[in-house]
Amino acid sequence: MRDVAAQTDNRGIPINRVGVRDIHLPVMIREKDGGMARVLGEFDVSVQLPHHERGTHMSRFVEVLSAWSRQPVATDEIRQMLEEIRSAFRADAARLQLTFKYFLEKDSPASGLTSSLDYDCLFAGQISDEDYRFTLGATVPIMTLCPCSKEISDYGAHSQRAQLTVRLRSSGDFIIWLEDLVPLLEAQGSYEVFPMLKRSDEKVVTEAAYDNPKFVEDVVRDTVLALRALASITWFSVECKSYESIHNHTAYAYAESGGE
Amino acid sequence: MRDVAAQTDNRGIPINRVGVRDIHLPVMIREKDGGMARVLGEFDVSVQLPHHERGTHMSRFVEVLSAWSRQPVATDEIRQMLEEIRSAFRADAARLQLTFKYFLEKDSPASGLTSSLDYDCLFAGQISDEDYRFTLGATVPIMTLCPCSKEISDYGAHSQRAQLTVRLRSSGDFIIWLEDLVPLLEAQGSYEVFPMLKRSDEKVVTEAAYDNPKFVEDVVRDTVLALRALASITWFSVECKSYESIHNHTAYAYAESGGE
Amino acid sequence: MRDVAAQTDNRGIPINRVGVRDIHLPVMIREKDGGMARVLGEFDVSVQLPHHERGTHMSRFVEVLSAWSRQPVATDEIRQMLEEIRSAFRADAARLQLTFKYFLEKDSPASGLTSSLDYDCLFAGQISDEDYRFTLGATVPIMTLCPCSKEISDYGAHSQRAQLTVRLRSSGDFIIWLEDLVPLLEAQGSYEVFPMLKRSDEKVVTEAAYDNPKFVEDVVRDTVLALRALASITWFSVECKSYESIHNHTAYAYAESGGE
Amino acid sequence: MRDVAAQTDNRGIPINRVGVRDIHLPVMIREKDGGMARVLGEFDVSVQLPHHERGTHMSRFVEVLSAWSRQPVATDEIRQMLEEIRSAFRADAARLQLTFKYFLEKDSPASGLTSSLDYDCLFAGQISDEDYRFTLGATVPIMTLCPCSKEISDYGAHSQRAQLTVRLRSSGDFIIWLEDLVPLLEAQGSYEVFPMLKRSDEKVVTEAAYDNPKFVEDVVRDTVLALRALASITWFSVECKSYESIHNHTAYAYAESGGE
Repeated sequence: MRDVAAQTDNRGIPINRVGVRDIHLPVMIREKDGGMARVLGEFDVSVQLPHHERGTHMSRFVEVLSAWSRQPVATDEIRQMLEEIRSAFRADAARLQLTFKYFLEKDSPASGLTSSLDYDCLFAGQISDEDYRFTLGATVPIMTLCPCSKEISDYGAHSQRAQLTVRLRSSGDFIIWLEDLVPLLEAQGSYEVFPMLKRSDEKVVTEAAYDNPKFVEDVVRDTVLALRALASITWFSVECKSYESIHNHTAYAYAESGGE
Repeated sequence: MRDVAAQTDNRGIPINRVGVRDIHLPVMIREKDGGMARVLGEFDVSVQLPHHERGTHMSRFVEVLSAWSRQPVATDEIRQMLEEIRSAFRADAARLQLTFKYFLEKDSPASGLTSSLDYDCLFAGQISDEDYRFTLGATVPIMTLCPCSKEISDYGAHSQRAQLTVRLRSSGDFIIWLEDLVPLLEAQGSYEVFPMLKRSDEKVVTEAAYDNPKFVEDVVRDTVLALRALASITWFSVECKSYESIHNHTAYAYAESGGE
Repeated sequence: MRDVAAQTDNRGIPINRVGVRDIHLPVMIREKDGGMARVLGEFDVSVQLPHHERGTHMSRFVEVLSAWSRQPVATDEIRQMLEEIRSAFRADAARLQLTFKYFLEKDSPASGLTSSLDYDCLFAGQISDEDYRFTLGATVPIMTLCPCSKEISDYGAHSQRAQLTVRLRSSGDFIIWLEDLVPLLEAQGSYEVFPMLKRSDEKVVTEAAYDNPKFVEDVVRDTVLALRALASITWFSVECKSYESIHNHTAYAYAESGGE
Repeated sequence: MRDVAAQTDNRGIPINRVGVRDIHLPVMIREKDGGMARVLGEFDVSVQLPHHERGTHMSRFVEVLSAWSRQPVATDEIRQMLEEIRSAFRADAARLQLTFKYFLEKDSPASGLTSSLDYDCLFAGQISDEDYRFTLGATVPIMTLCPCSKEISDYGAHSQRAQLTVRLRSSGDFIIWLEDLVPLLEAQGSYEVFPMLKRSDEKVVTEAAYDNPKFVEDVVRDTVLALRALASITWFSVECKSYESIHNHTAYAYAESGGE
């Protein structure tokens, strides 16, 4: 059976990334306390293809990922997966992106009732002969209450749901856990959101948000300050998107900092 | 060239709908004032297939729709399209759904500045030997401000963007224009949303919404009352979805009324 | 603290459904072999609201769902959840829809390699004084190869990915497991799809699909025949959507059968 | 009325981009032949915010875009819009992205029937004191037929719908029209796709695709060669995503070339 993907290519064009996407697999995420969360993972994985190779054997990606579906992963394991992929494909460089909904428990602010909220998280890695880079990401829902609306109105102030997304890279072996990053981000809005609120909780949320009005610009700046306080971070990006309640469009602010 | 779609089928199974979807075409919508709006249309069109026919000639759908892409459409033209389709396919029944973003101009409440807002609209028709039914639909963005949050809080009240969706059918030749339906629906929220608001406008929106708190249940009931006042409507459904600013989920209410 | 949702409403309008949507929670699904799959669930849950009640206490939905997030669910448990909801809300009727990606292992046809494929599944229930109805749903990816293209061409035939979606209700206590329904549906395309295929497998898939050309109409009719063979089913709907490789639109066929 | 957005900020943090997204407006696109296409535009527009300004007056974005909604745009006009925005905001830098479905007529390969196909297109610009950069983008649907499947199978070969996306920048005043770029991209797949195909056309498509098998890697390399032949291009990226008919995931290849 002739292997056409293994043919020599004469067009002289290397390809930055060849791979597969939209792969869903159960994944176990290592938790900060030593436990393990079973999540639904979505993968995007690729290798660099040298100019002389016609194609990649895509099934190998699925083989590697399937094997990893049965053991807990975190920062270190993403590197191991990438090294396996590089080796399996004899590739100079490889990339992997794993996105998943991660659940953390929250206590409602007055009733103290506990419920679980989901956060869209990201583990991304890229490896080459020169280096390995790991990027951690999280998107958390928050509430924003408009400072302008509060200032100019005799009463009330419009609020809305917003999303705060951070991507970051850290130096050396310093690990930032989602269990620590997510609450840090939730603290940057006018207030946090919760899955379950009794009336006593809703009063706290309403008044606290009114006491803490923030533009998307404010959320981004305060997040930058909070991330700077984490000494090991070498690069980050911050984006806040606010689904304005007075408009049918989205307001946003985006900042990044640190060497690529 | 043998036509396998035209073969006789022996499985004895009629199929309710056979057709095409995700067809994008420019469409001209007849406006209330006699003008014409050029919009981006998305079509879903199908016919009933009798048990003895193996397949449908899908390219005919595209032929009919392409021809109609060059002339203004409204209620009556949807019926003509369906009659053409029934005839082209010699089908007992046919259905068509056209969705499009429709723009209407709005004046901001204090500054009087004019801007255009987009609404997701629907023209749907189904025809058979027995009858023809036309359904008009519109989804309008609105603002909801929570009555509970206002009641229990010393100050402030959470608000958020919501969507109000109506589908309706009317008797006889009575035409309800989107130009009339959309403003009627926008009036049912705590307040309307606008593309462009100056500070003087934002003050009006903030205070007016605070003065008019509504649950999704309230929005739906008030919309039901408003629609009942339009005498010709024989059936309608109303749904309000509120993207809660204090939660990461959606609250909704749905009501329908009238014979199918 | 006054409870405005508990106020009496005078508008005289009952609301068919009031509830929450886009709620994500970890869920444990009971497997056929007695095991348990941990999946990411998305819930839509609602109750009927009588004309005299102004609002619903939405937080109770989250309370009930959160408690159920910690124990395995299947057909029977959906009924228990709905009974708890009816009781918690003193509602005449309640509805619940749980959608989730479910994984089943598949052996590649020649190499015998095992990998996991994900299927979009649905458990839906509705309960009232009169009755309880449970609907099971599954969407499976399949391959379709066009009979017309094969017939008229000297060589080759276009193929594409398609999706086959079934919803069904069965009588009495008869349980249809996803472990049985999914393979039955996968058998209705020109051929199945797999996460991982070696070249020996790809040869089998290619030739088998070419030997078994099917229109969406054929897929739907063959699925109807297969479902009819399951004696306990009282109602079903079948839809096949084919993402045509020769077009930029979708071809589809939809049939349903049995009393509502 | 105090203007809190105009306050001085003391956090010392400049923000890369502050703006609005998900803005829909009718747009007129200048056509190659001097005509004008009315399309549905979606805008993402932002400015850089210096460290000492607390916020941006988002309504100005909508003012500028609304005015431009009434006149034809192409490369040059994007620059004018950005200059207006920089001036209105007294900003050092500004960015704009306009995405829209653009329709071009195609003749079916045997019957010669004409129909319109939609392509997702992009005009993006960024301006600062130092320079102005314009990026043109287009995503075209194509068909890919797998070389491996053809090689190893006694008959048949799986095919599927794929998408080819190009982003490019050119030097000086050289304009590349969508009317020229789109057909160039459509020629890179195993074959083109069409809205409307009669049986005589479908035979041509089927056989031509079988005669021209391509991996996503092949499509990307051939596109790179085709773009290199356009002398004025200074940077481009090419991505081909193939919705594999034998899998439930996407295969892709991505290459870029030229200085940022």
